[in-house]
Amino acid sequence: MTQTHPIPLSGAIAADALARLRERTPLIHCLTNQVVQSFTANVLLALGGSPAMVVARQEVAEFSAIADALLVNVGTLHDEQRKAISLAVVAANQAGVPWVLDPVAVGGLSYRTEFCRTLLEQGPAAIRGNASEIIALAGKTTSGRGVDSADVSLDALSSALSLAQQTGAVVAVTGDVDYVTDGRLTYALPYGSPLMTKVVGTGCALSAAVAAFIAQKDGERLEQVASACMVMAACGGMAAAEVGGPGSFVPRFLDLLYQLEPKRLQEMTV
Amino acid sequence: MTQTHPIPLSGAIAADALARLRERTPLIHCLTNQVVQSFTANVLLALGGSPAMVVARQEVAEFSAIADALLVNVGTLHDEQRKAISLAVVAANQAGVPWVLDPVAVGGLSYRTEFCRTLLEQGPAAIRGNASEIIALAGKTTSGRGVDSADVSLDALSSALSLAQQTGAVVAVTGDVDYVTDGRLTYALPYGSPLMTKVVGTGCALSAAVAAFIAQKDGERLEQVASACMVMAACGGMAAAEVGGPGSFVPRFLDLLYQLEPKRLQEMTV
Amino acid sequence: MTQTHPIPLSGAIAADALARLRERTPLIHCLTNQVVQSFTANVLLALGGSPAMVVARQEVAEFSAIADALLVNVGTLHDEQRKAISLAVVAANQAGVPWVLDPVAVGGLSYRTEFCRTLLEQGPAAIRGNASEIIALAGKTTSGRGVDSADVSLDALSSALSLAQQTGAVVAVTGDVDYVTDGRLTYALPYGSPLMTKVVGTGCALSAAVAAFIAQKDGERLEQVASACMVMAACGGMAAAEVGGPGSFVPRFLDLLYQLEPKRLQEMTV
Repeated sequence: MTQTHPIPLSGAIAADALARLRERTPLIHCLTNQVVQSFTANVLLALGGSPAMVVARQEVAEFSAIADALLVNVGTLHDEQRKAISLAVVAANQAGVPWVLDPVAVGGLSYRTEFCRTLLEQGPAAIRGNASEIIALAGKTTSGRGVDSADVSLDALSSALSLAQQTGAVVAVTGDVDYVTDGRLTYALPYGSPLMTKVVGTGCALSAAVAAFIAQKDGERLEQVASACMVMAACGGMAAAEVGGPGSFVPRFLDLLYQLEPKRLQEMTV
Repeated sequence: MTQTHPIPLSGAIAADALARLRERTPLIHCLTNQVVQSFTANVLLALGGSPAMVVARQEVAEFSAIADALLVNVGTLHDEQRKAISLAVVAANQAGVPWVLDPVAVGGLSYRTEFCRTLLEQGPAAIRGNASEIIALAGKTTSGRGVDSADVSLDALSSALSLAQQTGAVVAVTGDVDYVTDGRLTYALPYGSPLMTKVVGTGCALSAAVAAFIAQKDGERLEQVASACMVMAACGGMAAAEVGGPGSFVPRFLDLLYQLEPKRLQEMTV
Repeated sequence: MTQTHPIPLSGAIAADALARLRERTPLIHCLTNQVVQSFTANVLLALGGSPAMVVARQEVAEFSAIADALLVNVGTLHDEQRKAISLAVVAANQAGVPWVLDPVAVGGLSYRTEFCRTLLEQGPAAIRGNASEIIALAGKTTSGRGVDSADVSLDALSSALSLAQQTGAVVAVTGDVDYVTDGRLTYALPYGSPLMTKVVGTGCALSAAVAAFIAQKDGERLEQVASACMVMAACGGMAAAEVGGPGSFVPRFLDLLYQLEPKRLQEMTV
């Protein structure tokens, strides 16, 4: 395994990726957890995407095949959803629709951990998790009890590289600094804020944003995933700097995602 | 089929309908999609209604029979909910409780489309959808892929008239301009804002508002549905004019629904 | 049954309980209703807890056993959730994890009412409901149709005392004034605002806060539950005094929970 030195992402790349997303309004099929559905949909709408939550076994394959990308998040996985996800992933793969895996709380709970391991074999285009989740998904032990990341994202970088090399997916480990890798090149994105951890669904919504950015067939997938992380963290950091707490963070964050001019990202390269 | 020329709704009618809703605090049984439940409940509370989401097969019939109106929204339809909706609709009909159908994404997906066609035979009091949905429900072809309305609401007006005449329901097609018809008389309501399409659940919450307005047994149903559309679009338009994006739209919209003085509607007739 | 005269809670006790909660970041397993999951999670995060919604039969027992407290809310009870709750409660009891029962709309609907009666035999550490719910759970008749409390909280005090004595749980009846009793001593907390009844989930989120406060093994449970009620009502009352309606209430309330300095509670004893 080659450990690459993480590099910054050019804001011009993120600006271009955002501009193209808004032009195309990608339709994102979200099979996500019960807690964050509304926030996820609002984040996608603010970014310029078109979210749709279609959940029934009878419909998911039909819908994934016509979507521009599929999001799979196992936060509140249950039997019916497991069946629906399995059908949607097969249909997405057959139709050439890229899909994102968000392995919420994998590691601490065996039902979802085993399911996510089987999903890895189906070829996700991208995987987005916190440090505990990425370490666990790569088959290592972790100290996490669940959705909180007990390991900082840098510690998970070697797991992310290994996971990317094993699966062919672009892997994003998010935390104080986000790392995005395809197993060869790694971007480091230091734009977020700890306040984002006090708002439920910021990580889950980032995974949805990743789906919206990779829904564009042209362009490099690694840079698309890194662009999603940069846009979300940049708006999150700006919102956190302006507000007094997690309650007013949410409306401000959504407004900033909606208002963000791509050129503003060009000024942000660290 | 008679195409009527749409006319404006008198603000005095909407003012009166809102005042009566607030006096009675109607109990609205919501069988709606997973994404918008919280926003729907908050809209009903702000308007002056009393929302309740009771979902189990064992309870829905018991509850619909004592509610003042029932909302059926198929946005995240699945087998269990299909059974629950079927039981609730029968119980509502037996008890004389009016119910509203929101045919989310009908047309593009056969499972929900077939179910909504069977629901039409059960006699909804009102139907609220976007142009694609109303055209599809009326049995015509549509260009929509799902929740986005690819057809402008005026194009759907002939479908709405036809659907109203076939089913006896009041039909609302919402978009840039909302049209509300009973198949004979049609109201046009031009008060909304495009920003409302960037917030998940504004259409779904409007269907809940329709349920709250038709929960009053006296009064004309056509004018009650048109009043719901006018109140929601008026507050939506005012909120959109004041805020910088879809995030701050939500709290402002709810505050305006809560604060709205009926007499303000009287000044709004276009 | 001894009717005790309700007394105020010392703000110093609530301040101390809040400070300890924030030090420990208790992990709260929430088995709650579909409508309020996001708001509940955000309230717990703002307070300083760590929420997790794990719902599958395959996972709930594993997770409850490692959580610091469990919340059971029957607002949208259905068959699968009923099984999950039963498994989680047994696992929590075996592991010595305290759990809270929120008997939403009990009394009006027999399916949930019978289930909550069986849960009472499993030994909840605390029960939080409105007047109608507490009266019904104690086996008396009530005028409530559902989630609205048709009986003022004082009327439910004798039912709360009786329920606490029967079950050993601390019982909180919330309304204009909140009453918290262990069947011997009763606290009265007059800090809330009627605006909180216009926001969905304030009661449900209070039950989650109760879980977070009782997750600390040292300390007196009665005072912990009363502290949860005081903190939530104090922030709710402050937020309501500052805002223009229920929409802007939500972000302000969450900000205040996040910012609240424990010493501020010390000044609030009435």
